Amino acid sequence: MSKSIEDTGIALIGAGNLASNLAKALYGKNFRIVQVYSRTAGPASSLAGMVGATWTTDLQHITGEAGLYIVALKDAVLPGLLPAIAARNPDALFVHTAGSIPMDAWKDTAASRYGVFYPLQTFSRQREVDFAGIPVFTEANLPEDAGILNKIAERLSGNVLEVNSEQRKNIHLAAVFACNFTNHIYTLAADILRNRDLPFDILLPLIDETVRKAHDLSPESAQTGPAVRYDKNVMAGHLELLESEPDKANIYRILSESIHNYSEAVKNDKNLKE
Amino acid sequence: MSKSIEDTGIALIGAGNLASNLAKALYGKNFRIVQVYSRTAGPASSLAGMVGATWTTDLQHITGEAGLYIVALKDAVLPGLLPAIAARNPDALFVHTAGSIPMDAWKDTAASRYGVFYPLQTFSRQREVDFAGIPVFTEANLPEDAGILNKIAERLSGNVLEVNSEQRKNIHLAAVFACNFTNHIYTLAADILRNRDLPFDILLPLIDETVRKAHDLSPESAQTGPAVRYDKNVMAGHLELLESEPDKANIYRILSESIHNYSEAVKNDKNLKE
Repeated sequence: MSKSIEDTGIALIGAGNLASNLAKALYGKNFRIVQVYSRTAGPASSLAGMVGATWTTDLQHITGEAGLYIVALKDAVLPGLLPAIAARNPDALFVHTAGSIPMDAWKDTAASRYGVFYPLQTFSRQREVDFAGIPVFTEANLPEDAGILNKIAERLSGNVLEVNSEQRKNIHLAAVFACNFTNHIYTLAADILRNRDLPFDILLPLIDETVRKAHDLSPESAQTGPAVRYDKNVMAGHLELLESEPDKANIYRILSESIHNYSEAVKNDKNLKE
Repeated sequence: MSKSIEDTGIALIGAGNLASNLAKALYGKNFRIVQVYSRTAGPASSLAGMVGATWTTDLQHITGEAGLYIVALKDAVLPGLLPAIAARNPDALFVHTAGSIPMDAWKDTAASRYGVFYPLQTFSRQREVDFAGIPVFTEANLPEDAGILNKIAERLSGNVLEVNSEQRKNIHLAAVFACNFTNHIYTLAADILRNRDLPFDILLPLIDETVRKAHDLSPESAQTGPAVRYDKNVMAGHLELLESEPDKANIYRILSESIHNYSEAVKNDKNLKE
């Protein structure tokens, strides 16, 4: 590695929510983004414009000059495209950003230096996120490249951790619970209120406090409500309200049972220890 | 009503999390708390001390002099105790604070003036909450008493709404989703991480951003992740990780399906409208 990545620059393969947020954050920390690739011209040219890079929609025209290639494509297509991307510059460092895809996805490509750069956040086009507090999980096949990735990550975030592929897969799973599933629960709550002509925003102070509690207390000790008390009257009344909404009733039943079982297990555990 | 409640004062029946937070908030806004009742002396005397009130553990010794009685007891015992409480001062105004219990729970008591005062929040002993942003839902059998309750609520909160018992029951149901269920999902996520020696706090920036999105966007339009993309590979991989945790796997399956069904329904709905 005669030249540093600061000299050679970074190619961003992808122009979706994660790629855009990451490219802008790197650009903001004075990294040079040399090129943006996307299958479609609109996102590629728009992101390239924001970070002073060239752009292409042709895999064969991906630059052969970048020191680091960050591949942020949809999980479903990512593994299939890695060989063509790695072939563009086999001596460079290649990373993907997918929580659920192992580092070994690079193994059968031309790349000899590869890894993962996984920022744990939910990215949307409409909202710019501050990278400073976002955990970034790194992994590399060579120790010196792990060092390079950690240094880059540390310019963006105060929260950088090296993890292996198995750990990262579990982090991604936990993130699906903490983000996608809770967001769906909000959607169902919004639905319940909308069907009764009540606005969703009456729930926001409650949602905010629930999250503040998760910061201060462990979520299991913060649990309240009819299920943890196993208040059968209240639960039966709620299920009655959901009579014509079997999906919500099913979710209500299963989560209430899980809350109850969990709190019983915690109690028994405490009794055993006493 | 010759005397105002400011003159006669308020009796707090209950000394649990909600009662304590409410009593302290009222006291902080210069309402006079004349008495605290609780079944057990510890909580009653401790709360009474904080708000300059007398206290009792004997239902028969509940004061006959208060202008307003706020009953904040567990849902399971509350309806059974209302007759004895109302009998202490049948001319006063009586309210309970339970989202799921209709106003009519007062109907067969000695009380002629009654209603509901329901602050929508999750209260814990360890954390003091700021009432200013908390929605307070009021209901009364007499219009002038609705006015009195609204005025009291508005001293505490900028967010006061009169709702009927049916609406309030649905608000309580939506709150169980938005608070208890999401908190349980956090618990499961914490569990997944703990079982792999990873700390829960790596999820906090993601959880915070998910909630910020719920403030800015509707939760259904904010949805991301493998289920809404219906990425079968990722979902199958996650279920594999949960092989020895059938409860979590079951919840994973049902919520992923619900996310997918919901997003398909939203798409179809849009197509129909176009």
